[in-house]
Amino acid sequence: MTNAYQHLRDTFTRLSRFSHLSAITGWDMQTQMPAGGSQARAEALAELSVLMHQTLTAPQIADWIEQAKSEDLTPEQQANLAEIARRYQQAVILPEKFVSAKSLAGMQCEHAWRTQRPNNDWDGFVKNFAPVVELSREEAQIRAEKTNVSRYDALLDLYEPGMTSARLDTIFADVKSWLPDLLKNIVEKQKTESTLTAQGPFAIDKQRALGIEIMQVLGFDFNHGRLDVSAHPFCGGVPEDVRITTRYTEDDFLSALLGIVHETGHARYEQNLPKQWAGQPIGEARSTAIHESQSLFFEMQLARSEPFLEFLRPYVQKAFGDQSAFEQGNFLRMNQRVEAGFIRIDADEVSYPAHVILRYEIERALIEGEIEVRHIPELWNEKMHSYLGLNTQGNFRDGCMQDIHWTDGAFGYFPTYTLGAMYAAQLFASAKNALPDLDQHILRGDLSALSGWLRQNIWQHGSRFDTDTLIRNASGETLNPSFFRRHLEQRYLG
Amino acid sequence: MTNAYQHLRDTFTRLSRFSHLSAITGWDMQTQMPAGGSQARAEALAELSVLMHQTLTAPQIADWIEQAKSEDLTPEQQANLAEIARRYQQAVILPEKFVSAKSLAGMQCEHAWRTQRPNNDWDGFVKNFAPVVELSREEAQIRAEKTNVSRYDALLDLYEPGMTSARLDTIFADVKSWLPDLLKNIVEKQKTESTLTAQGPFAIDKQRALGIEIMQVLGFDFNHGRLDVSAHPFCGGVPEDVRITTRYTEDDFLSALLGIVHETGHARYEQNLPKQWAGQPIGEARSTAIHESQSLFFEMQLARSEPFLEFLRPYVQKAFGDQSAFEQGNFLRMNQRVEAGFIRIDADEVSYPAHVILRYEIERALIEGEIEVRHIPELWNEKMHSYLGLNTQGNFRDGCMQDIHWTDGAFGYFPTYTLGAMYAAQLFASAKNALPDLDQHILRGDLSALSGWLRQNIWQHGSRFDTDTLIRNASGETLNPSFFRRHLEQRYLG
Repeated sequence: MTNAYQHLRDTFTRLSRFSHLSAITGWDMQTQMPAGGSQARAEALAELSVLMHQTLTAPQIADWIEQAKSEDLTPEQQANLAEIARRYQQAVILPEKFVSAKSLAGMQCEHAWRTQRPNNDWDGFVKNFAPVVELSREEAQIRAEKTNVSRYDALLDLYEPGMTSARLDTIFADVKSWLPDLLKNIVEKQKTESTLTAQGPFAIDKQRALGIEIMQVLGFDFNHGRLDVSAHPFCGGVPEDVRITTRYTEDDFLSALLGIVHETGHARYEQNLPKQWAGQPIGEARSTAIHESQSLFFEMQLARSEPFLEFLRPYVQKAFGDQSAFEQGNFLRMNQRVEAGFIRIDADEVSYPAHVILRYEIERALIEGEIEVRHIPELWNEKMHSYLGLNTQGNFRDGCMQDIHWTDGAFGYFPTYTLGAMYAAQLFASAKNALPDLDQHILRGDLSALSGWLRQNIWQHGSRFDTDTLIRNASGETLNPSFFRRHLEQRYLG
Repeated sequence: MTNAYQHLRDTFTRLSRFSHLSAITGWDMQTQMPAGGSQARAEALAELSVLMHQTLTAPQIADWIEQAKSEDLTPEQQANLAEIARRYQQAVILPEKFVSAKSLAGMQCEHAWRTQRPNNDWDGFVKNFAPVVELSREEAQIRAEKTNVSRYDALLDLYEPGMTSARLDTIFADVKSWLPDLLKNIVEKQKTESTLTAQGPFAIDKQRALGIEIMQVLGFDFNHGRLDVSAHPFCGGVPEDVRITTRYTEDDFLSALLGIVHETGHARYEQNLPKQWAGQPIGEARSTAIHESQSLFFEMQLARSEPFLEFLRPYVQKAFGDQSAFEQGNFLRMNQRVEAGFIRIDADEVSYPAHVILRYEIERALIEGEIEVRHIPELWNEKMHSYLGLNTQGNFRDGCMQDIHWTDGAFGYFPTYTLGAMYAAQLFASAKNALPDLDQHILRGDLSALSGWLRQNIWQHGSRFDTDTLIRNASGETLNPSFFRRHLEQRYLG
């Protein structure tokens, strides 16, 4: 007799195989597909997504979950069952018609946004965006009722299970209390330094070769992954075959290179997830914030550190020839430049949290019904002024219309960027404590001990533990934003 | 009320979306995937293939087919229904367990063959090949009983609906009556000519650029397709996004270039299938032989013709610089070289049919139970001797172990190569009649009228008509091998 747990396990193995097809054809769409293939691809992926939703919410799943609870399971199987139940609940709670209505509204809004943003067309954008907000509020309401949390918390839980806005409020209030001053002090300090920028052109094939060289240093497994080009860099594919992307421009190599390092952080997490649980929810990455913590661990904590930049310098000189900008002090300053700007994705790690907190405050009020879409531009301007000293009045393009995330209703996602940065700082501090010679290793480009620490403390656990437990086991305490503050102070004012 | 035909149509639309995922991830496997991804990919594709088999053979399909027969359908819908019924019958006839047993045996045999062939290990090969033959005989028996044809004919019908071994026997008897003498005469004639071979190295990026240039001349739509590299060239993807591949070596550019032309022929057929029937069986290519007729139309009829080679010459000179081998007469002779050899895939168009007929005769006797696996090497040697004057005794590697097709039991496939060559000759003769200035157009690289003729007569019809009707409508008569004979005589002895 097959027991109920085995039925669930087989169902999720099947789902993971469908996810595999979705991930690879999704990657192909971003990196290989000619434009004329998009309609047929969208239809094929939508069909697959309906199939996956039906498979996940099939009538017998609820019964199996109930039965499995009284079966004799190992602790790992129990953890897996809990993750299975969580996913089932999240999926079954929304009527299928609602899911497709929201997906359609999101696609329409995103599609129109691609031309409305460059045209600074806020009024046009609102027409498509308002229905997305309405549907997201409705979704939040349905989810909130079932789980007895606030509406925004119900959405937040989709990206960061266990996180609440009450906790975020405390964390972000702390950041807001010191970040504006810190930023001002850093900018003042950097004004006294003269920093040369690197002079291109930097040939794309050399950038690519350097990127691959550094990926190898960072431990990316090319037997289970690739590097390609896409308009918007991402880490996709499956743990057995991780597909990362970057984009190159000839006048700047650092943006593509650090982007590659960032995606390599995501990739190493994926490539080192527990093989024995492959295909099961417990074998997947813990959460969006933990995933981001791995990419920022590599990009911000490791690659922009003084020892790594010193290790990197000769590679850059070899690839592009020597120039003054690549001299020791200048190369460091060039990679640690801080400047308040309008655009989140171009922001340095010091001003980045301001972008995130601003969005968090606005999207939360929006979902809770405290404000309406029409209030966004004014709030955006006020907060940009207060956090970064910038004026966005009338500048929707570089203001509240700059991000893709809201267009398809991914409310609750933005906070994970800064949570990820904080987890990264906390984990790096912990690794540094555990590995006394870490700076020396990094200076030599030997990351084996650091990888070992991440594998031991994060990667191998998949979703075996909740986020708080995972972080406490790794660092001795749950999320503590003071590590992040200390990291910024030491790096930029130390 | 949705009628039964609509249910069937929706089911096949759904199946075509699953095929899309299979085609793109299959292409990825051959062109992009790192080796470490193969196990997970094989599992994902097997899962999809089970799903597709279940979808196609679901209990209600038979009822819908019966009901749809009495519904009020257009002639196109009736033709589509007939194709749907044919596919349903072909799929439902085999027990699911048998399908996976045969697939497993085939994969094992193919996998082992990859090392056994280079090692000339016939005895080892037989161990895996004998079960494949047994299962193929069993499949043939099951199919034959249902359709009242001979066992081999039941398999042949999978690749070339409507074709029978009785008809093949007549066609191939005709070919065997003139081919050995024709081949001898051509070889004798070519002995009197001196032909220089082109001297490499030919840089791969230049070969690729030339390939793309020629694909554009041939009308390949890059908005709906790509060119990439794979170990074994193929045409894959979906009509909206056709993926062709080639392989390059630096010492020879003609093999990759003519390979690209061949796959472009397949691709133009796919790209020009009827859009209004996309996703339905009637909207797909007619058969394996008709598909091959399009690739050989482009490669053999068009690209190796005197006017096209003369058009091509300056492109080659521009790409690789001039050399004596590229002079007018020599360039023609170089591309029309005939020589009997051991290896089918390297064969010229004159000796190719001998390779096919030999395989047809052996595989038919094998499936009908007239011979056993152990008899193959001797028969192979006898027939190679008689058709091409070559001895393969003890040389299994370049003899009966050279092809991949038998390893997974694709018996009935080989004849479609030569049927394709014959259809190509017949269609080209017909196009030439309809387009009096064709040679002049080709000499200028203007293929619009020729494309128009193929679109009008072949591409736009998908599977609307059976093969005989399609060919009769296009050329005035059903398959007539004398066109092929005349083509060879005119080109090589004219």
